[in-house]
Amino acid sequence: MPLVRIDLRQGTTPEYRKAIADGVHTAMIEAIAIPPDDRFQVINEHDRDNLIYDPQYLGIQRSDKVVFIQITLSTGRKPGQKRALYKRIAELLGKSPGIRPQDVVINLVEVAWEDWSFGLGEAQYTKD
Amino acid sequence: MPLVRIDLRQGTTPEYRKAIADGVHTAMIEAIAIPPDDRFQVINEHDRDNLIYDPQYLGIQRSDKVVFIQITLSTGRKPGQKRALYKRIAELLGKSPGIRPQDVVINLVEVAWEDWSFGLGEAQYTKD
Amino acid sequence: MPLVRIDLRQGTTPEYRKAIADGVHTAMIEAIAIPPDDRFQVINEHDRDNLIYDPQYLGIQRSDKVVFIQITLSTGRKPGQKRALYKRIAELLGKSPGIRPQDVVINLVEVAWEDWSFGLGEAQYTKD
Repeated sequence: MPLVRIDLRQGTTPEYRKAIADGVHTAMIEAIAIPPDDRFQVINEHDRDNLIYDPQYLGIQRSDKVVFIQITLSTGRKPGQKRALYKRIAELLGKSPGIRPQDVVINLVEVAWEDWSFGLGEAQYTKD
Repeated sequence: MPLVRIDLRQGTTPEYRKAIADGVHTAMIEAIAIPPDDRFQVINEHDRDNLIYDPQYLGIQRSDKVVFIQITLSTGRKPGQKRALYKRIAELLGKSPGIRPQDVVINLVEVAWEDWSFGLGEAQYTKD
Repeated sequence: MPLVRIDLRQGTTPEYRKAIADGVHTAMIEAIAIPPDDRFQVINEHDRDNLIYDPQYLGIQRSDKVVFIQITLSTGRKPGQKRALYKRIAELLGKSPGIRPQDVVINLVEVAWEDWSFGLGEAQYTKD
């Protein structure tokens, strides 16, 4: 049910980007119990000019390795689950591809369960 | 009032992408009664590595022709209207450019009516 | 706390796009009181075929200079603040890089304060 948008600077390898996408997905499975095969992700690479971040907002020292992760997901996760998700994403991206936790910026966008169609023109989560 | 983001793999023609955009727009006119000239759409084409989808989530067999359609729209449509929208988008994209309904993935993001400015620095839907 | 997505046609200079990003950011500081260093922005440039807009919806005459500005921000701004934001963005982009107010299309997406992590795997706005 999540749709994940990952934005980062150009200059990484496909393996590096796959590790990010894998880590985000695994964290969602572990922290908020999404089904393992519920995976839909879009990665956008940007010129230096086209991805702008503050290098110290809230006292966190970010670098050009910064990654923006925007996750659209169905409503209902409690704040504690969201915090567990942020923590796990940062942990996993730290392990592979080796991104500093300071460079992991995450935003959730909650939508209704009826707001998804996974194909066939049907709303699979709310059929009636 | 909708802002539509369409994400798909590279390798299609402009005519193919126009047919997708046209179909999504026509379906919104027919199923949820948006004004015909309320059309704002962004299409992003991706390398194989940068658009990731599960090929069988919920038992639906997706292919590399998969299209992600994310529609930000004003709140208020009933579940039945949303279902009609999904069905009509899948039907129209099946006719042109000829996308299998299994490959049409849709997500809605609802926002308030006051969350739009269509130009001139004004909130046209909620002027007072 | 806002994440800003800016979409426009290809063919502009980095200075032009920076002026847009600067103007949107300054308007948010002035109109809705975001912290000056709370800045996270993504710019996407598109082929003619891949950015579609209606040239006269609501009687506003748009041109190929049109810019879509989608701002994901935390909930709580009153309608008056949102209107002030739209007005100020249009004013500032009119001054620099010199975009007609007709060409400034804005959409807000509100999320909860708990929906953000600015690094370190923590939810900085809702730590407990």
